Amino acid sequence: MEISQYQEDFTSFLKEKKWVKEPKNLYEPVEYILSLGGKKLRPLLTLMACDAFNSSHKEALSAALAVEVFHNFTLLHDDIMDEAPLRRGKQTVHEKWNINTGILSGDAMLILAYQFLEAYPPEMFHKLTKLFSKTAIEVCEGQQLDIDFETRKDVTIDEYLKMIRLKTAVLTAAALKMGAIIGGASEIETKSIYTFGENLGIAFQLQDDYLDTFGDPKTFGKQIGGDIIENKKTYLYLKTMELANSVDKEKMTFFYNQKLSENSIKIDEVTRVFEKYDVPEIMRSLIEDYTQTAYKSLEALQISDCKKNDLQAIGEYLLVRNM
Amino acid sequence: MEISQYQEDFTSFLKEKKWVKEPKNLYEPVEYILSLGGKKLRPLLTLMACDAFNSSHKEALSAALAVEVFHNFTLLHDDIMDEAPLRRGKQTVHEKWNINTGILSGDAMLILAYQFLEAYPPEMFHKLTKLFSKTAIEVCEGQQLDIDFETRKDVTIDEYLKMIRLKTAVLTAAALKMGAIIGGASEIETKSIYTFGENLGIAFQLQDDYLDTFGDPKTFGKQIGGDIIENKKTYLYLKTMELANSVDKEKMTFFYNQKLSENSIKIDEVTRVFEKYDVPEIMRSLIEDYTQTAYKSLEALQISDCKKNDLQAIGEYLLVRNM
Repeated sequence: MEISQYQEDFTSFLKEKKWVKEPKNLYEPVEYILSLGGKKLRPLLTLMACDAFNSSHKEALSAALAVEVFHNFTLLHDDIMDEAPLRRGKQTVHEKWNINTGILSGDAMLILAYQFLEAYPPEMFHKLTKLFSKTAIEVCEGQQLDIDFETRKDVTIDEYLKMIRLKTAVLTAAALKMGAIIGGASEIETKSIYTFGENLGIAFQLQDDYLDTFGDPKTFGKQIGGDIIENKKTYLYLKTMELANSVDKEKMTFFYNQKLSENSIKIDEVTRVFEKYDVPEIMRSLIEDYTQTAYKSLEALQISDCKKNDLQAIGEYLLVRNM
Repeated sequence: MEISQYQEDFTSFLKEKKWVKEPKNLYEPVEYILSLGGKKLRPLLTLMACDAFNSSHKEALSAALAVEVFHNFTLLHDDIMDEAPLRRGKQTVHEKWNINTGILSGDAMLILAYQFLEAYPPEMFHKLTKLFSKTAIEVCEGQQLDIDFETRKDVTIDEYLKMIRLKTAVLTAAALKMGAIIGGASEIETKSIYTFGENLGIAFQLQDDYLDTFGDPKTFGKQIGGDIIENKKTYLYLKTMELANSVDKEKMTFFYNQKLSENSIKIDEVTRVFEKYDVPEIMRSLIEDYTQTAYKSLEALQISDCKKNDLQAIGEYLLVRNM
């Protein structure tokens, strides 16, 4: 099936729901953040994974919505914590309303996400909800690690990879696994698809970090160099600090302690250090490793080649969409 | 069984859990707020309701913990919204740490509450989780109404009662119903016990509002007159405004627009207006009405008189504990 068909079905399903009821001040921000657009990659994964296991993707619509509403709950609360004024080019909820509204409407979204899983019968509800809770708490842990890293000077690459696994990859993995569960996949199949999603999710996030510095400004969506401006210690920074000589290390440390209003020199200089130590190339190869590891967990699956291709196509879709 | 036995069992169950794991900054605030004490009335209701239906109360310990963790999640986020410096005489989480920690650890608590329900088999998990989500979203709605009322000048008594039903009573009702479900109560029994809890919860909150002005300073844990100081439009205020002549109404409006550093005159004056219109007496009779309505929903139950007495004792315990 065409990707656009999944997107259309999901969007109409989301729009059919009556989001705003009383008290309006609680629910209007929920409708607002869900209407801001975004790529809706995660719910698509749920639908596509369901389809890959011989089941109609429409059965997975409620779970896909749970995933999307949960993801937007994390964006809403993260935006408060980051004091972000904009989300997808529009005012964030706490800017348009206030922080208290942002906290409470976010809480309501987390609960609504659980409620969308009630569409499934008890045994399946039990499986989906357990997976959902495990994932949700891991995403909180990932967010906490990300906050902790801001003030820590000794973050290792392994710790960084653990953080992005928790903050990003487990939701990709769970989105796929939920679709597979609804599609009737076996225990061993759902485990493999989870591993597939986890590695794919790490590749996805690393690629996002890569493109933040080296992406094409025309297609990337966000400002190129944003992570450098905000002194974010992503893989590019951490790997460079591992490889650089003391002069370059000092230079990096100098720049990563600045908050500037004019950033073009900083971005140029830092990017040049990244390149001097071949870190972009090392990173591309790491992304490729995670992608290949992801695909390998598909090979072991006892499903038809056709289904495998469908799942692999999901991965390619995810990574290409992010280019 | 003695109340103290339930309390002891619940407290050891709570303390046995390993609350703090990595990342510590996420979980230490969870352990902190749960260790602040508090009356732990809601989890006791879950245990007692389970026992009333011929089942060991120990089976309800996980659900009781879900209720308690959820309640403390609401306190944590409400304290941020209210900018409250203290909770049970100790620093609130956002004061001891910061607002971001308060938001994120609160989110984690809501998820943990769901996870404690995983102790039950799929069919029961389904029932409990549905009830839990319905209750949780209603509590958010109640909190939103409470916030909305602060800036509204036309709140009716019916709207006020709806607000306290959502913000407080539905959790009392759900705590009891969850215990009854685990105890093997029938559908009709769990419905009656929910109605019992709902009316009891409203009586409980009205009594709390009453005691805030007319309680005994020696036994009422909070400062007498706190609601008057904060210009809270509780039942006492709303009923007085309904009955008062224009001079007294103006006096009330005058005082409820002041934020003072010295409040004894304001408290005295406002209390005198409440009394002038017999509002304390009207309120006591309303509390008694809700209490009797609560007990009536027990009468219809097809259970032994002994069990009915046990449940009635829960109600008396709840209201007496609050005196």
